[in-house]
Amino acid sequence: MDNPLALDITRCPIGFVGLGLIGGSMALALKERTPDRTVLALDHDRDTLDFALKKGIIDRGSTEPSVLADAPLIVCAAPVSVILSWLATETRHLKKGTIILDTGSTKKTIVEAMQGLPAGLYGIGGHPMAGKETSGIRAAEKTLLEGAAFLLTPLPGAPQGVTDAMADFVRLLGARPFIVDAALHDFMVAATSHLPYLISVSLVNSLEELILGDLRMANFLAGGFRDTSRLAASSPDMTIGMCSTNRDAIVGHLRAFIEKAEHVARLLEEGRDPELLHELARAYMLRTSLYQGGRPWEAQDEGK
Amino acid sequence: MDNPLALDITRCPIGFVGLGLIGGSMALALKERTPDRTVLALDHDRDTLDFALKKGIIDRGSTEPSVLADAPLIVCAAPVSVILSWLATETRHLKKGTIILDTGSTKKTIVEAMQGLPAGLYGIGGHPMAGKETSGIRAAEKTLLEGAAFLLTPLPGAPQGVTDAMADFVRLLGARPFIVDAALHDFMVAATSHLPYLISVSLVNSLEELILGDLRMANFLAGGFRDTSRLAASSPDMTIGMCSTNRDAIVGHLRAFIEKAEHVARLLEEGRDPELLHELARAYMLRTSLYQGGRPWEAQDEGK
Repeated sequence: MDNPLALDITRCPIGFVGLGLIGGSMALALKERTPDRTVLALDHDRDTLDFALKKGIIDRGSTEPSVLADAPLIVCAAPVSVILSWLATETRHLKKGTIILDTGSTKKTIVEAMQGLPAGLYGIGGHPMAGKETSGIRAAEKTLLEGAAFLLTPLPGAPQGVTDAMADFVRLLGARPFIVDAALHDFMVAATSHLPYLISVSLVNSLEELILGDLRMANFLAGGFRDTSRLAASSPDMTIGMCSTNRDAIVGHLRAFIEKAEHVARLLEEGRDPELLHELARAYMLRTSLYQGGRPWEAQDEGK
Repeated sequence: MDNPLALDITRCPIGFVGLGLIGGSMALALKERTPDRTVLALDHDRDTLDFALKKGIIDRGSTEPSVLADAPLIVCAAPVSVILSWLATETRHLKKGTIILDTGSTKKTIVEAMQGLPAGLYGIGGHPMAGKETSGIRAAEKTLLEGAAFLLTPLPGAPQGVTDAMADFVRLLGARPFIVDAALHDFMVAATSHLPYLISVSLVNSLEELILGDLRMANFLAGGFRDTSRLAASSPDMTIGMCSTNRDAIVGHLRAFIEKAEHVARLLEEGRDPELLHELARAYMLRTSLYQGGRPWEAQDEGK
């Protein structure tokens, strides 16, 4: 199959590189929505594959890359470093016309690597805006991606057919495709996803001494801390790659955030309560308007 | 009734100063657990009182302070400034033996004000570690306090009977009493509650330009941002008083947090990935251990 436009996205076999929270949740959704499809998986962890086979999440799994040889669509749902290494070493055996989608949380590095794919293979970057703080196949849920934005970053000059097919694939999963340039993607998620993560990490680490000093301290932890610190429980295996492939954008947003926090500290310290109230009210207005009522942006579906 | 020890906490009338999320949730829990008890409320908002009367959450409500004259137990569940003003002006008409508990999120200022109560009245500070980002009587839930720690800060030299009675009252609500000194309380919640709130505010405000500049930006907002920013939707009416009555402790914790965040930014900027991974892993370990498995501190119930 040389022509990716000929791919029947509703029934073609699909291969996963990495079967953790995201890959597993996608596989579960596909098994639910298109039960006759063959789902294949490559994972380094035998236990993960055994579990997925036993639960009927996949049809075939192996620690050998050749298990994906016949899949016309391959989804890379592994840490960024694993994706990069797989792209570099395992793609030359794939059939012409194969589409490769990834789900990493940074896109520039991966899209650049995809531009070096062997001729006849079609790469496209992807990033489902869904997740939770637990990881691994056992945390997978078939509804994890439902209603979530699924950002797609096409390669420069890639055939429109590849983008269209992947937008259809995203809709098939119950998610909303949103096409965006890879560099803009990385700049944006640095602000909306990587920044909150590093804030959460810094919050937890700044309370380390207090908590370890007296376990009764935990009586003071209410829902506010629980939510604000939730992201810190993300797997460092995943997040270190996200940091190292989006360094500059994250540093920029983190420094801008620190300036805001320092401004708040100064207002508080100097007793400038009317100005402080203004800051609190601004955040209140923005946060409540984002999560209440209509969401104009959800009407936009540039993949259509 | 001069002796607070004689108070039958399971059936005595209870009055609320302020019937918002916390007062309303406590009233709902009391109506569920002790249905024959009379519940009274003082609130400045007529609509709140009408709603609570219609729903059977209270038996009598008024915008006039005299509505609470006969309640031997009064719970102040209003913004800190309102509590302080009520304590100063409305308590001289109360009967001797009346116990006054509050639910404000800072305790030093309130406990100090309570020390000036007319002779024969018994004040005690309280702080339920429960809440959500919505406010007002319509957001109240009868299970809001269930299983939550309810911190109690007795006045210096107060009769043990008052503390014991309030610990029983807290258990009656389904919460877990935990006795703590007011100054320690304020230092601790500055770290676990006020700090996460101001971090959340700073995060939202640091993204303001990006979001308002392009509403499609919201497609990049996933669950991580939603949780980390949740506290920013807290009512500024409540939170400004929390800030202004716990200024020094909050500034201290906020500056320590900023230092951690700046350290992370520096490691990232300078490509010191092994050290960065160490920070991520430390936060991961602490956060997951706090919310998984046994919680040794929950066995402690110093009110018993």
